[in-house]
Amino acid sequence: MDIGSILLALVILLILAHLSARIFNKLGVPGLIGEIIMGIIIANLAIGDWSLMSMLDISMGDDPSENYEVIELFAELGVIFLLFTVGLDTKISDLLSVGKAAVLVAMMGVIVPFVFGFAAIMIIDGSTIHAMFMAAAMVATSVGITARVIKDMRLIDAKESRIIIGAAVIDDVLGMIVLAVVLGMAESGTISISSIATITIMAVAFVLIVMAMAKWLVPRVHTYFHNRKEKIVDKTGDYHPLMNKLFLAIIVCFGFAWLADSIGLAAIIGSFLGGMLLADYAWEWGLEKKIDAISTLFLSFFFLNVGMQINLSECASWYVVGLSLLILFLAVISKYIGCEIGSKMGDKTLDKQSRSIIAIGMIPRGEVGIIVATMGYASNYISVEMYAVVVVMAVATTIIAPPLLSKAYRKKYPPEIKFTPEDMV
Amino acid sequence: MDIGSILLALVILLILAHLSARIFNKLGVPGLIGEIIMGIIIANLAIGDWSLMSMLDISMGDDPSENYEVIELFAELGVIFLLFTVGLDTKISDLLSVGKAAVLVAMMGVIVPFVFGFAAIMIIDGSTIHAMFMAAAMVATSVGITARVIKDMRLIDAKESRIIIGAAVIDDVLGMIVLAVVLGMAESGTISISSIATITIMAVAFVLIVMAMAKWLVPRVHTYFHNRKEKIVDKTGDYHPLMNKLFLAIIVCFGFAWLADSIGLAAIIGSFLGGMLLADYAWEWGLEKKIDAISTLFLSFFFLNVGMQINLSECASWYVVGLSLLILFLAVISKYIGCEIGSKMGDKTLDKQSRSIIAIGMIPRGEVGIIVATMGYASNYISVEMYAVVVVMAVATTIIAPPLLSKAYRKKYPPEIKFTPEDMV
Repeated sequence: MDIGSILLALVILLILAHLSARIFNKLGVPGLIGEIIMGIIIANLAIGDWSLMSMLDISMGDDPSENYEVIELFAELGVIFLLFTVGLDTKISDLLSVGKAAVLVAMMGVIVPFVFGFAAIMIIDGSTIHAMFMAAAMVATSVGITARVIKDMRLIDAKESRIIIGAAVIDDVLGMIVLAVVLGMAESGTISISSIATITIMAVAFVLIVMAMAKWLVPRVHTYFHNRKEKIVDKTGDYHPLMNKLFLAIIVCFGFAWLADSIGLAAIIGSFLGGMLLADYAWEWGLEKKIDAISTLFLSFFFLNVGMQINLSECASWYVVGLSLLILFLAVISKYIGCEIGSKMGDKTLDKQSRSIIAIGMIPRGEVGIIVATMGYASNYISVEMYAVVVVMAVATTIIAPPLLSKAYRKKYPPEIKFTPEDMV
Repeated sequence: MDIGSILLALVILLILAHLSARIFNKLGVPGLIGEIIMGIIIANLAIGDWSLMSMLDISMGDDPSENYEVIELFAELGVIFLLFTVGLDTKISDLLSVGKAAVLVAMMGVIVPFVFGFAAIMIIDGSTIHAMFMAAAMVATSVGITARVIKDMRLIDAKESRIIIGAAVIDDVLGMIVLAVVLGMAESGTISISSIATITIMAVAFVLIVMAMAKWLVPRVHTYFHNRKEKIVDKTGDYHPLMNKLFLAIIVCFGFAWLADSIGLAAIIGSFLGGMLLADYAWEWGLEKKIDAISTLFLSFFFLNVGMQINLSECASWYVVGLSLLILFLAVISKYIGCEIGSKMGDKTLDKQSRSIIAIGMIPRGEVGIIVATMGYASNYISVEMYAVVVVMAVATTIIAPPLLSKAYRKKYPPEIKFTPEDMV
């Protein structure tokens, strides 16, 4: 392991991410977009034989360099920790209060994009398998991106935010189910009811177990911590900083992420549920600041890495550009329409502004869309052009949504007016 | 990248490290020894065909598995952050006040072990190259281990602690110089005065630059932070958490670690100097708790990894056992004698108890000894048995020293009696 080379790559990327985030902030745009665009620049910048990627010994593709593996790991841990902090802010009781709306927003936000995507590719391309993968990639919502915008705006307690986060999490679960179904169909040629049933039961059981643990186990752990005397210096004078709540939180975060991954869900769903498990005591345990410190180290790499997936030279054909624009358009309007209808069905008290916030908040596809495309491409079910289209769509929806979302939020909640009690659940 | 498998390995290792540290704490032994011993158990535990290592997909050696690479990275980052926090606690003015004593302790702590080690291997083995590598591996002090014990005991302000840390840092630098010399001699057969001069000048220049920056640059940065208004919510409501002191600290930590590595020193020396650069404002900036949170995630892997280097089956020959015991004995007494003499020469006011604390604090070899051995083994300058001997010596000195050190400290500073002003510099 060449630690010097790794440290150099980390430092340069952190500084570039920071600078671009600051510049975009000054322009009034969320910093994460700066980080994504910086990722695109980093991956594509080459002057003659020189490129930043080769200078930093970062190469992607089938046989990635060690430095890229570190970036990928940090990106993955970053989004895992981000969803963990979002979970820490999300009390189960709050989520249950928006349950019906979240479920309907999520379901409509899956059905409408899937139908639109499937129809479009069937008309253009004619291949059922291509159409299925494309449609599956258009389904899932990237809770990471939206959650960051909501967190940055400090509007996580608004009713719309809770509906979005609840729906996005359900959506990610539905996205994983759709992926499992599509993969099963592509392999066997038929729909496997048993695999759909298995993953659905797993996901529901996971959520129920977390709710039960939050009710019966976590309060007992809290009592244990509370009663334990703070014996900082024992007879040896030794104090082991691992014996603390932060350690427990890291274990829960990683453990639940692993569990979710191993039952076929995304790791981030597990870390979100893990955070939610501890949400009732997060403030008392002083977890948020500490987990935020850890996030600071990792999270920029997630947004950089989203941008780094875009290979501009691959997107330089008219077919890819045209198809990308079409799919992007469909992805945005299908999600908007689906979620707008879903929120109307789910909660009659939501006004037009609120429904619009929710519908915009569900637009980013981000990593889940890319995961679907990567699996389809790796198994030769879709072409490299289709893959590029999905990546462009996933990244573009991710770039488009945050400024629209901040605007929609700011319309309803102007910075001067803090939200009033009736907007809170 | 199989994030599920990585998360599982991280969770299981963190839990095992935590449990072993707690058990050793209860027994009155520093927790890091529990972590090192747990590392030995993890690396060597096999029941029939089953082993924990293969269950967690950890394999070391020339072609390490992805999971082991993550552990190695975390171990390296852990010790880099540890030395950074030690640096944050070490003000330059405090270190200068013990400068003469630290320099003499370091120099005598290099000369005596080198002579003992060289003589012993020349007598036993007869090979100059073997003897040089063995002697070089006996030279450096593992500031990581000692620093952790001192930090855990909250005695970082005691005069002895500052001498130990200063001397250990100088020692690590001297160790790198010795390694450069030995490597140069092994390659060319002659002593290269220019390479010795280069690395020495680099090291001195690095320290001087850090001192100059701490005096002129950092106060200006502090004023900038102080004057900048806390505009948490700007017109977009966006708040980018990267724009803060923690981000700066991480950049300094990684940047200086990279710089040290790239001029031929150990990365940990750079992160220590980086921490020292910010030491005057660490408390005001609230850095320590945040960096400690990041350390919590990484540091256990460092101590686990030290233990995991020990392959018990390779140590199962009488030659290795005998030579290990001899080298271990020589490593302990030569360092003790050298540093006891050095501290007597450097500071006449130190009493016998203080000199003993300093001499014991310098005993652990830890990672630098292992680095030397690894380089010698990789280039075929030493045999696998010699390598095993160095690893045993490095780990055993690391295990032996902490309990002796806590005892020596406790004799001078009983837990009831907080240290009095005359013990402080």
